[in-house]
Amino acid sequence: MTKERLYLFDTTLRDGAQTSGIDFSVNEKVVIAELLDRLGVDYVEGGYPGANPTDTEFFSEKRTKTATFTAFGMTKRAGRSASNDPGLSQILDARADACCFVAKAWDYHVKVALGCTNEENLESIADTVRAAVSAGKEAMIDCEHFFDGFKANPSYALACAKAAYDAGARWVVLCDTNGGTLPDEIKQIVTAVREVVPGTHLGIHTHDDTGHAVANTLAAVDAGVRQIQGTLNGIGERCGNANLITLIPTLKLKPAYADRFELRVTETQLADITAVAHAFDEILNRSPDRHAPYVGETAFATKAGIHASAILKDPQTYEHVAPETVGNRRRVLVSDQAGKSNLLGELERVGIQIDKADPRLDSLLAQVKEREAKGYAYEAADASFELLARQVLGEVPQFFEVKSFKVIVERRHNALGDLITVSEAVVKVDVDGETRMSVAEGNGPVNALDVALRKDLGKYQTAIDGLELIDYKVRILDGGTGAITRVLIESQDTRTGRRWFTVGVSSNIVDASFQALIDSITYALMKANQA
Amino acid sequence: MTKERLYLFDTTLRDGAQTSGIDFSVNEKVVIAELLDRLGVDYVEGGYPGANPTDTEFFSEKRTKTATFTAFGMTKRAGRSASNDPGLSQILDARADACCFVAKAWDYHVKVALGCTNEENLESIADTVRAAVSAGKEAMIDCEHFFDGFKANPSYALACAKAAYDAGARWVVLCDTNGGTLPDEIKQIVTAVREVVPGTHLGIHTHDDTGHAVANTLAAVDAGVRQIQGTLNGIGERCGNANLITLIPTLKLKPAYADRFELRVTETQLADITAVAHAFDEILNRSPDRHAPYVGETAFATKAGIHASAILKDPQTYEHVAPETVGNRRRVLVSDQAGKSNLLGELERVGIQIDKADPRLDSLLAQVKEREAKGYAYEAADASFELLARQVLGEVPQFFEVKSFKVIVERRHNALGDLITVSEAVVKVDVDGETRMSVAEGNGPVNALDVALRKDLGKYQTAIDGLELIDYKVRILDGGTGAITRVLIESQDTRTGRRWFTVGVSSNIVDASFQALIDSITYALMKANQA
Repeated sequence: MTKERLYLFDTTLRDGAQTSGIDFSVNEKVVIAELLDRLGVDYVEGGYPGANPTDTEFFSEKRTKTATFTAFGMTKRAGRSASNDPGLSQILDARADACCFVAKAWDYHVKVALGCTNEENLESIADTVRAAVSAGKEAMIDCEHFFDGFKANPSYALACAKAAYDAGARWVVLCDTNGGTLPDEIKQIVTAVREVVPGTHLGIHTHDDTGHAVANTLAAVDAGVRQIQGTLNGIGERCGNANLITLIPTLKLKPAYADRFELRVTETQLADITAVAHAFDEILNRSPDRHAPYVGETAFATKAGIHASAILKDPQTYEHVAPETVGNRRRVLVSDQAGKSNLLGELERVGIQIDKADPRLDSLLAQVKEREAKGYAYEAADASFELLARQVLGEVPQFFEVKSFKVIVERRHNALGDLITVSEAVVKVDVDGETRMSVAEGNGPVNALDVALRKDLGKYQTAIDGLELIDYKVRILDGGTGAITRVLIESQDTRTGRRWFTVGVSSNIVDASFQALIDSITYALMKANQA
Repeated sequence: MTKERLYLFDTTLRDGAQTSGIDFSVNEKVVIAELLDRLGVDYVEGGYPGANPTDTEFFSEKRTKTATFTAFGMTKRAGRSASNDPGLSQILDARADACCFVAKAWDYHVKVALGCTNEENLESIADTVRAAVSAGKEAMIDCEHFFDGFKANPSYALACAKAAYDAGARWVVLCDTNGGTLPDEIKQIVTAVREVVPGTHLGIHTHDDTGHAVANTLAAVDAGVRQIQGTLNGIGERCGNANLITLIPTLKLKPAYADRFELRVTETQLADITAVAHAFDEILNRSPDRHAPYVGETAFATKAGIHASAILKDPQTYEHVAPETVGNRRRVLVSDQAGKSNLLGELERVGIQIDKADPRLDSLLAQVKEREAKGYAYEAADASFELLARQVLGEVPQFFEVKSFKVIVERRHNALGDLITVSEAVVKVDVDGETRMSVAEGNGPVNALDVALRKDLGKYQTAIDGLELIDYKVRILDGGTGAITRVLIESQDTRTGRRWFTVGVSSNIVDASFQALIDSITYALMKANQA
């Protein structure tokens, strides 16, 4: 059976850039464009040249090697000719091989937003497409609010789509701009559009406002569209755009789609998709979504004891796809049910090779179980886990010893009569047989302790110079201020960019923080020692 | 047209509890069960009595007021009678009105996991259902791996479903345990099942491994099922379960479902759903998903300049549903109007009646906005909110004033040479013009401060005798030990059973805890004063 070609259109740098809290610099856009080439998408919509300086500069060069570099903009204004519309000119002048113009397809919007007649809007669409084609560009039209527009005035919405196609657009993209359309409606409406535009020239652009961005996209493909628009990790305004990272594995691995369609994305590129998703999170400086389909850290992790042994025997009975196909890993969690085989798997993951008959394994397993019963959560603290393992294996020297610490938080009136709170920590540390005492102030008790601990570690000071705390989470297990506190710390070495998590548990929050801090510093010294 | 009834089955406390990094205490389960009653679900699956101490204790009492309290477990083992299966007995003995048993429906699993024949499995299903019905319980069967099982051996999967129904199960739930099934497959298979089990007795349980949990659920409803299983905020193993918070608004607001179906969830409960979703995140001590459909902070926030004015003119043209219907807010820069009516709604909810033209409302609104910008999360801390409101309204006297406090945490060697950590707090309080000084030790700095603060409040001492701290959550906003800390405290008056939440925000964790503690004590005194 001949497969049909499906095209992937990425709008991370344009629609994705509308995400609250995100602002790409030119350099970030360059890096992301490279990432998109690496992934294997067909089109990269780089932004809106002329709308802002960043995008204008970004389009001063062609930024993709394999994907079609695409400029976004609006259809020409009514009342002007295409050649006389400065906005349009900037888009056509950009160093892009394709242009994607957003057009109104809902008559209400034509009236309220454009202030022109329905006819004039159709002319604008056709003229814009013709101008782009004449300029040697691949032309496409994003029909904004298409599905709501079709529900309000079906013939007009169809007329807009037809005008674009008849004028020579390579793609007519149906956009669910408000994100409120449901899959069956998508199918019905796409079917209707195919009366005037063939599926080979139709695209779909969805949003996740009802949790259907991915489902709507595939519903549209089922109904005949052949271009899919989306973003990396589903970023985008409001609830986000369709997540290409979720769509690509489904299209490549599920027979319902893999048997019918072909993407440019190869199997090798598919196996790289987890890395691409994580790399994008790094660029955004965002915590990855641990539960993301296919690429999330827990996407193939199972906790339930009854599954663990069964999975290792026959993965297909418990996993919907093999994790390696998308570059992810099966994570059987180090938890209450940790068995020896689980433990070996986890040790291998942090780079420790040990024979399964090694007696130290039993000792380590016992310690892990005991600590987890106390509240240590090793599945979230790889560095503490690796440290514990290497300590049991006798690989970690004692770099330093904290003899004592004292932390004071005081709230009082200062000389001006203002109520202030001050935090101070005093630490006594033995390094190389010599006792060093340090004091530090901080925003709070843990901050003060952190600074004091890292202030003077003698000969190890340079090894921890780049050490920085970047996140700190506290959980109280079993409630009340007398209960067990678990502290999770994320640290980073600013010089290498390496990040790691450590954990501490105690009924005393300062003590728990102290343990996590000590683990973090010791881990950094251990890694420096290994290098 | 008569609407059909759709039933919502929440498994946050059972399947949701399998989420990596989540471990509910009994107390947390109690609070979550109350939240689920507040939301209006039909069933609350509380856990697996007999499987672990927490769940066994949780089922020692009925924990819901309106929802049907449901116990989970496994079908009886082959080779034993129902009355002779200790696991089954524990489930039937639990204080639940319904029981949900997971059963194998894939012949491969029957062989490999159960080690019995296909026939024996069918008998186990039927016997288990009959035993539950005889015990006066509403019985249901979760057909595990149903869709994969059907694809592998359709007649056996159907036989399992039929065995459950014929034996008297109220619900036969089809579970997409691996999460890899797609919507059209769901529809086809559900249609096939309806040959042996009527849709009125069918349920659907999906996972989000391909981003289709919600879509699969609605596809199943379209194909005839009438029970929906899911969790709050979509928590669950791997990529999570179907998100009830996403499903409920779609079922209540989209004509495709609202015209055909009825839920127990009322419009008022729907308008409370954003608060419920956020309260659940607070219990989990997790950052909320800002982009979550309907309830996310950015779900109705638009950045694009072109939209803002158009939206205020005619929201329907840019919003797929009105944010107020789900208790969310349109976040466009100018939002004073929306702010005031939100505030009035919140005040009403905590029992404060105030005229919307009252000038004090502006002052209160300004204070609330300012504090929320700093990190106070009032939607999770009703008591702090009520306190602030009543203070602005001039209703709350100053019961006491803390002049100063000092908290010390010291880790040192004791006389025996053991390393110990001690925490001590000293507090100076003015009550009725008299200064009182108290000292206390504790498990940690906050515990010590809590005890010291409540040790001697003069004439108010008896009013706070029953005051107890039962939960304490810390969140660091914006990362690192120098960042803002938000503390949420849950308190209880053991004499009345009343519970309340208070919040404190500071860059210093002790300070933040102090604020929340003070609010808690003041709230208790205010309530005692009102009585």
